[in-house]
Amino acid sequence: MMQHPENDKAYKGLTVNEGVENLPQVNPYAKFRRQKRVLSAEEYVEGILRGDITMLGQAVTLVESNLPSDQVVAQQVIEQCLPHAGKSVRIGITGVPGAGKSTFIEALGTELCQQGKHLAVLAIDPSSERSKGSILGDKTRMNELSVQANAFIRPSPSAGSLGGVARKTRETIVLCEAAGFDTILIETVGVGQSETAAHSMVDFFLLLQVTGTGDELQGIKRGIMEMADGIAINKCDGSNIERAQAARVSFKNALALFPPTESGWQPYAETCSAVEKTGIKEVWSMIEKYIRFARENGYFDRKRTQQAKYWMYETINSHLLNGFYQNPEIEALAQLMEKKVLNNEISSFIAATELLNAYNKLK
Amino acid sequence: MMQHPENDKAYKGLTVNEGVENLPQVNPYAKFRRQKRVLSAEEYVEGILRGDITMLGQAVTLVESNLPSDQVVAQQVIEQCLPHAGKSVRIGITGVPGAGKSTFIEALGTELCQQGKHLAVLAIDPSSERSKGSILGDKTRMNELSVQANAFIRPSPSAGSLGGVARKTRETIVLCEAAGFDTILIETVGVGQSETAAHSMVDFFLLLQVTGTGDELQGIKRGIMEMADGIAINKCDGSNIERAQAARVSFKNALALFPPTESGWQPYAETCSAVEKTGIKEVWSMIEKYIRFARENGYFDRKRTQQAKYWMYETINSHLLNGFYQNPEIEALAQLMEKKVLNNEISSFIAATELLNAYNKLK
Repeated sequence: MMQHPENDKAYKGLTVNEGVENLPQVNPYAKFRRQKRVLSAEEYVEGILRGDITMLGQAVTLVESNLPSDQVVAQQVIEQCLPHAGKSVRIGITGVPGAGKSTFIEALGTELCQQGKHLAVLAIDPSSERSKGSILGDKTRMNELSVQANAFIRPSPSAGSLGGVARKTRETIVLCEAAGFDTILIETVGVGQSETAAHSMVDFFLLLQVTGTGDELQGIKRGIMEMADGIAINKCDGSNIERAQAARVSFKNALALFPPTESGWQPYAETCSAVEKTGIKEVWSMIEKYIRFARENGYFDRKRTQQAKYWMYETINSHLLNGFYQNPEIEALAQLMEKKVLNNEISSFIAATELLNAYNKLK
Repeated sequence: MMQHPENDKAYKGLTVNEGVENLPQVNPYAKFRRQKRVLSAEEYVEGILRGDITMLGQAVTLVESNLPSDQVVAQQVIEQCLPHAGKSVRIGITGVPGAGKSTFIEALGTELCQQGKHLAVLAIDPSSERSKGSILGDKTRMNELSVQANAFIRPSPSAGSLGGVARKTRETIVLCEAAGFDTILIETVGVGQSETAAHSMVDFFLLLQVTGTGDELQGIKRGIMEMADGIAINKCDGSNIERAQAARVSFKNALALFPPTESGWQPYAETCSAVEKTGIKEVWSMIEKYIRFARENGYFDRKRTQQAKYWMYETINSHLLNGFYQNPEIEALAQLMEKKVLNNEISSFIAATELLNAYNKLK
């Protein structure tokens, strides 16, 4: 179905689409430029449903666009894709910067592609991230995975206001599923609100850890460990093997102290080395075991519908709040009020009231 | 300053107020009934500032009232109390049902009163809680603490819509501080949104644990352990001592695996027995150690201003969302849509859009 990856906004790499094979083969960049006319929702949907990953990539760009006209078409595309969505296994992957998230995703993804899975990776554009990853830049990331025929890699900026990126990730999942991807890996950065959002759109939430404490773990938010359905301790290689194995035991003990999960599943830890490609199958087997477990006891479906309910309210809330926060006058005033509150000049109550009064006058 | 506790809505117990000693002593119930006329914000504030705990109790009732007319006066009271607030140490206490939260709060509170502290306890009304506590009922709770001259105990319903109770708790803190209380214990139930909210209004967040796993820990939300600044393992008594001490070591090890706290503080665990009143001083000493630590490195004040910023936005958000969710027509439609989403009849996107469209038509 999918023949070549089309792995980001820059449209690197060749793209051969099913259904257009009989067209004369041209420079894909030129082809892309030609396609830059406005497509209809139906054209996007038709392309997505036949697994055209160029079209899928463009539809994701549309979904991520902030232009009101784009948003109208995007919403139509999403709604028409929805009946074809929902059939993948969605896996969230998070970890501290330096835990080797992209190397791990590449190793796991390559393994999954070799197993014949159709894999979509919703990755974080490292140039948007203030971490070690960004020094390496875009090009070094997931080179091996990106040549896999069954893989679609989509980096998106991690910067997100008020649920922004999260909501778009969720919509991107819908598009990928409609395009026939059966396994979706969603990378998050380990800080801020994005984890709660990611947790609310995946079936399995994997925490990638490395041995060590203190500075090495700086950059991950507290609370994430208790969200995890499983832990993979990466960099279990070379002189680090013993420490990684000891860490696995420590995590096992720690996980047993947590309150039981809603699913009844007991999270555990595996060691792996993304660089040496060891332990990757074991991590995947943990995920598969969970999925079987959750499907059998009905939690898998229950969680999906609970997530749908959560997203109904999240969508409403962000619409209601956007009207306020996206107003330029309010934005300026909010910054001023925030500064006053941080300097103890006024109370949060009064600052909020002043902002709400200003907003009511504008309406 | 405060002479007798006035410990809940039912106005049990005698109340002797400073400044009214020369009045003939009457049945406090009759006195309360007489006072049931509408007071002005200035009258409330004047009463609160001179430490009149009957007045404080009534002001809290006013703050908790949903009547628009009450809310107007309540807001004035809060604003006038604000310049006198902020000087207490605020401690959040959470734990599973059955961990002995109220017995622990009573033991800790009695200890603090004996140390000469002016203590306010914002407790959860057990009749509002579906837990073991509710079987025992109101009367058995905190009898010892409630006879302490320096204690103000205020039970409030735990049921909370959209940030409701949380916001009121925060406002109640302001009133208590203005009334001269220097130490405030805030009880939460260990589930749902209330913990995040509680965490955002306290200086120290204590998790009350008991030994055992599985069923005993059911009823606490995952993620709370990582929020804690310290853990107290209660019921370290009788045949349970060894297990509790072993649990302390396990928690110590687990806490060391968590990412570092923002404050730089390393949370740890103490054992105690609220029933036998052992280890209570050690738990308090942990809290005092933290407060000293956080004051010295500047985190205490930084967290307070960050919380003020958080509450500025929370106040705005709940105002913006209340207009939607408190609309009866929307409420009915939301229930219908939620049901459809849970039954997979429509998507969360479409449900949200229909609700927003209905709301826009109503406006």
